[in-house]
Amino acid sequence: MRVVVALGGNALLHRGEALSAANQQDNVKRAAAALAPLARDHELIVTHGNGPQVGLLALQGESFGPDTAQPLDVLDAETEGMIGYLIERELGNLLPGRKTAALLTQIEVDPRDPAFANPTKPIGPVYDQAQAEELARARGWTVRPDGERYRRVVPSPAPMAILEIGVIRLLVDQAVIVVCAGGGGIPVVRRADGGFAGVEAVIDKDAASALLARDLDADALLMLTDVDAVYEDWGTPNARPIRQATPEQLAAKTFAPGSMAPKVQAARDFATATGGVAGIGRLEDAGAILDGTAGTLVAR
Amino acid sequence: MRVVVALGGNALLHRGEALSAANQQDNVKRAAAALAPLARDHELIVTHGNGPQVGLLALQGESFGPDTAQPLDVLDAETEGMIGYLIERELGNLLPGRKTAALLTQIEVDPRDPAFANPTKPIGPVYDQAQAEELARARGWTVRPDGERYRRVVPSPAPMAILEIGVIRLLVDQAVIVVCAGGGGIPVVRRADGGFAGVEAVIDKDAASALLARDLDADALLMLTDVDAVYEDWGTPNARPIRQATPEQLAAKTFAPGSMAPKVQAARDFATATGGVAGIGRLEDAGAILDGTAGTLVAR
Repeated sequence: MRVVVALGGNALLHRGEALSAANQQDNVKRAAAALAPLARDHELIVTHGNGPQVGLLALQGESFGPDTAQPLDVLDAETEGMIGYLIERELGNLLPGRKTAALLTQIEVDPRDPAFANPTKPIGPVYDQAQAEELARARGWTVRPDGERYRRVVPSPAPMAILEIGVIRLLVDQAVIVVCAGGGGIPVVRRADGGFAGVEAVIDKDAASALLARDLDADALLMLTDVDAVYEDWGTPNARPIRQATPEQLAAKTFAPGSMAPKVQAARDFATATGGVAGIGRLEDAGAILDGTAGTLVAR
Repeated sequence: MRVVVALGGNALLHRGEALSAANQQDNVKRAAAALAPLARDHELIVTHGNGPQVGLLALQGESFGPDTAQPLDVLDAETEGMIGYLIERELGNLLPGRKTAALLTQIEVDPRDPAFANPTKPIGPVYDQAQAEELARARGWTVRPDGERYRRVVPSPAPMAILEIGVIRLLVDQAVIVVCAGGGGIPVVRRADGGFAGVEAVIDKDAASALLARDLDADALLMLTDVDAVYEDWGTPNARPIRQATPEQLAAKTFAPGSMAPKVQAARDFATATGGVAGIGRLEDAGAILDGTAGTLVAR
């Protein structure tokens, strides 16, 4: 089978954990250990989130000085370097002799996407309300509640086309394990002259992963996080896991925006468009989700 | 012909220029305009330096807080993301319909390389002597004179093996324009268990480019900078450009360490090992250097 696996930000960095070099490396090792068995049996393509990382790089750059601060497309590319390297290195360590590649990935978005007027994607650390409002004033950020605290939010336009899809397909066809579309890809917009320019946004990595899986004719799309399944009535005494569902069954329900809702949407999109199966669950259950013994499976 | 082109830090950022997003983008556009004509006639592989960029990221990270500062291998990977993205985007804009790829590249170094005890690679901005000595005390840096001012220097071990060479060859064989080995590659060392770990260093990008060109059986290695040729007696009234030389003729001469000497060494290594031709000169003269009408050519 051809399997696209999306590693959630919460699979790479535990909630509330500091983004230290040691934490990040330990978490990537844990992720690689969960994915390596899949690579033995299947064609494996790995994508990853970058919310905490891109937020930290933005903060570091802006704190150091506005003259050298970089726009979000460049910061997205930096996180593809940072995280892609660590994932590729640790997967390679567990799969000696296998070819691996981590590829920078540009993804076209529509400059008229309504997301540009309505930022929703949380990046960087959480703040209390007073801190968040002060940062919003000082830096022109948009901030929104995230649980009981606040985070910066940026535009998250829909991914339209993966510029490197031909190269990715070429590598996957040659049995290379490919890490790509990290952080949802680097957002670019088409200019009037036909060329591409960067744009300040962070594409949702589940939406980008669903597009990638469709374009690659993947058999399965796995979205891995720190929650064991999609739940109905999450956060209530009635909460119960959904083991299997069709895209239509999920369409009638609501899920937490910014965390589970994008995964469910991506699962529905992929399953509807391809007839493949989409799975959502814990990193450690990757193989079991694919086997149907853990997590939530979505298929027509 | 198969041509490996190494873009020097000074070709991507003019000496003394601030590393702003706008400057960097403008310089990458200029570089892409110089390289695109080569891609029409030849197989093109592009590498690039990262001295100013990796130094800035290190500074931003350390200034923000030691808890989230990343080691140099991770910062090298971030610069491969940042610069690789911009080069790939702008080359793609000038060569619509051509496949391009920017690949993270790990390069093995020897943990017993004497460079680890003797840091020589300048990174980041220049400081006056008092600033440099204060930073050395406060942050444990090694600083050295760079022209009339001072810069931080880090270990620059010799590149031994390019981990992704099989993937790079696969892409080049399929006519993909590949950006790789940026910043001299991400330095890794082999552990006792056979796996790889990152290491704090910055590999010289000319040395890495020479290794890449050898491994790819390239016909030519071009090292592009802001100087029009290699000069004898540089900085004296007798300064005169060298138009052609054999590796042996250059072995008898001395060149500026940290700038021209590594390029001359890389040119000698490549020409000696392969029978190919190595060229050194200005970015704008890329095509003319290959034709033998500008720059310095080194061949057996």
